[in-house]
Amino acid sequence: MQSFDRGVTFPKGFRAATAKAGLRTLGDHPDVMLLACDQPSIWTATYTTNKVQAAPLLVTRDHVDGSLTGRAAVCNVAYANAATGAQGLEDAQTTARLAAELLGIEPTEVAVASTGVIGQPIPMDKLTTGLKQCPEALAEGEDIDHQAARAIMTTDTRPKTAAVEVDVAGCTVRVGGMAKGSGMIAPNMATMLGFITTDVAIERRLFQGILLDAVESSFNRITVDGHTSTNDMVLGMASGLAGNTPLARGRRGFFEFAEAVEHVCRELALQIVADGEGATRVMEVNVTGAESPEDARAAAFAIANSPLVKCAVHGGDPNWGRILSAAGYSGAAMQPGYAIVKVGKAEVFRRGMPVTGEVVSQAEAHLQGDRVELSVDLGVGTHHFTVWGCDLSKEYVTINADYHT
Amino acid sequence: MQSFDRGVTFPKGFRAATAKAGLRTLGDHPDVMLLACDQPSIWTATYTTNKVQAAPLLVTRDHVDGSLTGRAAVCNVAYANAATGAQGLEDAQTTARLAAELLGIEPTEVAVASTGVIGQPIPMDKLTTGLKQCPEALAEGEDIDHQAARAIMTTDTRPKTAAVEVDVAGCTVRVGGMAKGSGMIAPNMATMLGFITTDVAIERRLFQGILLDAVESSFNRITVDGHTSTNDMVLGMASGLAGNTPLARGRRGFFEFAEAVEHVCRELALQIVADGEGATRVMEVNVTGAESPEDARAAAFAIANSPLVKCAVHGGDPNWGRILSAAGYSGAAMQPGYAIVKVGKAEVFRRGMPVTGEVVSQAEAHLQGDRVELSVDLGVGTHHFTVWGCDLSKEYVTINADYHT
Repeated sequence: MQSFDRGVTFPKGFRAATAKAGLRTLGDHPDVMLLACDQPSIWTATYTTNKVQAAPLLVTRDHVDGSLTGRAAVCNVAYANAATGAQGLEDAQTTARLAAELLGIEPTEVAVASTGVIGQPIPMDKLTTGLKQCPEALAEGEDIDHQAARAIMTTDTRPKTAAVEVDVAGCTVRVGGMAKGSGMIAPNMATMLGFITTDVAIERRLFQGILLDAVESSFNRITVDGHTSTNDMVLGMASGLAGNTPLARGRRGFFEFAEAVEHVCRELALQIVADGEGATRVMEVNVTGAESPEDARAAAFAIANSPLVKCAVHGGDPNWGRILSAAGYSGAAMQPGYAIVKVGKAEVFRRGMPVTGEVVSQAEAHLQGDRVELSVDLGVGTHHFTVWGCDLSKEYVTINADYHT
Repeated sequence: MQSFDRGVTFPKGFRAATAKAGLRTLGDHPDVMLLACDQPSIWTATYTTNKVQAAPLLVTRDHVDGSLTGRAAVCNVAYANAATGAQGLEDAQTTARLAAELLGIEPTEVAVASTGVIGQPIPMDKLTTGLKQCPEALAEGEDIDHQAARAIMTTDTRPKTAAVEVDVAGCTVRVGGMAKGSGMIAPNMATMLGFITTDVAIERRLFQGILLDAVESSFNRITVDGHTSTNDMVLGMASGLAGNTPLARGRRGFFEFAEAVEHVCRELALQIVADGEGATRVMEVNVTGAESPEDARAAAFAIANSPLVKCAVHGGDPNWGRILSAAGYSGAAMQPGYAIVKVGKAEVFRRGMPVTGEVVSQAEAHLQGDRVELSVDLGVGTHHFTVWGCDLSKEYVTINADYHT
């Protein structure tokens, strides 16, 4: 597997375009993005588990469920089109219909995604004007890969792309992707969005399973503030143009392709965490020795979401007491007398007692880095789980308190 | 029911004393507190649900479970005596034994509580010297009520006391209390501690039920950072000196007494939230219209713990989008199309859509106060739950990031 500094148009068959529709009040980037595939692509998507779901998600779900293949995706920023009632649903449908007309395809072959302020209707005249500029601008290559990723940014400070080439049973297959997200929502900017493209030939149900697994072990394992948004969505499209023998479970190349998709998702997820609002450090939280996978997950998220742990990481303090007690209140079974807490490789707590001496300096040195590892063994079982989060800085409070709706 | 500016020695039979044992590095208050009852008191306690439990909790649980009545409680600050292994357990037992010797009672009649840094053993020589000064200083009255509450403070900025007098079937009964806590733990200062005294005559099991209920609707409904400590404990002692006919369930006065205990616990809990680390505002979160009590509770805590909601309250922003989406990710069943969000009395979101106009100014005005109310109706049932929290300020990050262990 080889990585490339590319994005969604890296796999064969995909082109993208962006436009400035005048929606954006934050920054000067384009604010509308069109991703199109030259021919029908197998598609699948996963959506937020938030009970409040935005209109574009409802429309996309309808289209993806109703048709095995899709041809395009439209994304706008600045307006999340969430909590916008019947008007919002109509706007999302209008957007899909317009893109379909422009591309000469069916509206049900178009996915729509939005991110931005909740509760305000999209100014459809502006979106329409912007979207109309896209079809003739459709292109592929490094420039548009990054431009497309920039067009979907809200409070993100950096565009997020990833791409790999992988050998699938003797045939070269490409996977590309882009994502946005940095904290759930700052100034109400909902959302983690991910777009994953590939030219593999694959059956829909299999692609669905692979994408779900990849999302589960990447996007679903990151947390900036524990706040799941109303608009989260990851869309996957497979053009089938790589020329491989269509993939099937257990067949040669299946594992390699699944790994490539996971790699791209993981890369994007880590870029999101690193760009978390106010974040200065990424922290990887490893929980081992849990009684069940659920316990491992609960403890890892409790640690990664604990404001006290996040503050300690921000301050470079190897505060095993906060880490241990966060695991303790997670509901996970644990035996404090057998528990181990590590900061980097330094074992700062063991057998019910803190370890003193040189180990503390090692832990402190580790916490000076950009990426820190916190590990807890709960001492009761064999299950493990990893989560990625970031530290909590005053900048986070500034971003989220000083903005007014 | 009448309130008084008093604390734990308000009910008949209780005296308290404090001493400076030289444990405290933070502030100049006393650091050891002894609460004593002239005669055996019915006692009961509730403890943290954290899987990591401090040594004093284990010893207190042992004593309270083993004996219907107790005579004294000792509390030290600066050292939590948590994660201190076998030495810690021995130290907690030694403390109880010493207090018993000094008061001429049994060690099993003494409860012990600690709060402070996790993982470091208590300097027992200092604690011993301090504790020895206490018995002859035992006193009752307004001064010692406040002095005792000050002695158990760690990062608290204010002592927390409450007291009421209530008519129980024609007999005057007093309930007093004190508590400490402000954020779970800053510089590792674990802990919410509560001491509730009363002179009511009551059967142990009944007192236990009343205290549990009161704690459930007060201390268990507050959150500063969602971080449950290793040392949390609420101890209740009833001297029986009020002279009432011993209380029994369903008998006259039962309801009034239960209400008095709940009132004292609620007052103390709200004082804790108001003194939350870096807090500038108390927020009351009311969830109604839930499918089940569990759903109501989950949604209320999700909102009160959401860093985005806390930042919005800090910034005075009536950000219904964050409130609604926190309820949405809590796991509670909801119908966004029927949901209602209120900031104070201002209905800012109704039937799937934000309300605009004057209502927004009303909500903004409400958020300027010291105490704000956020209400969400989930639109699916009849259950409700209330939680108290506080806002998130840069000061919280300063307190928790800039301190080093």
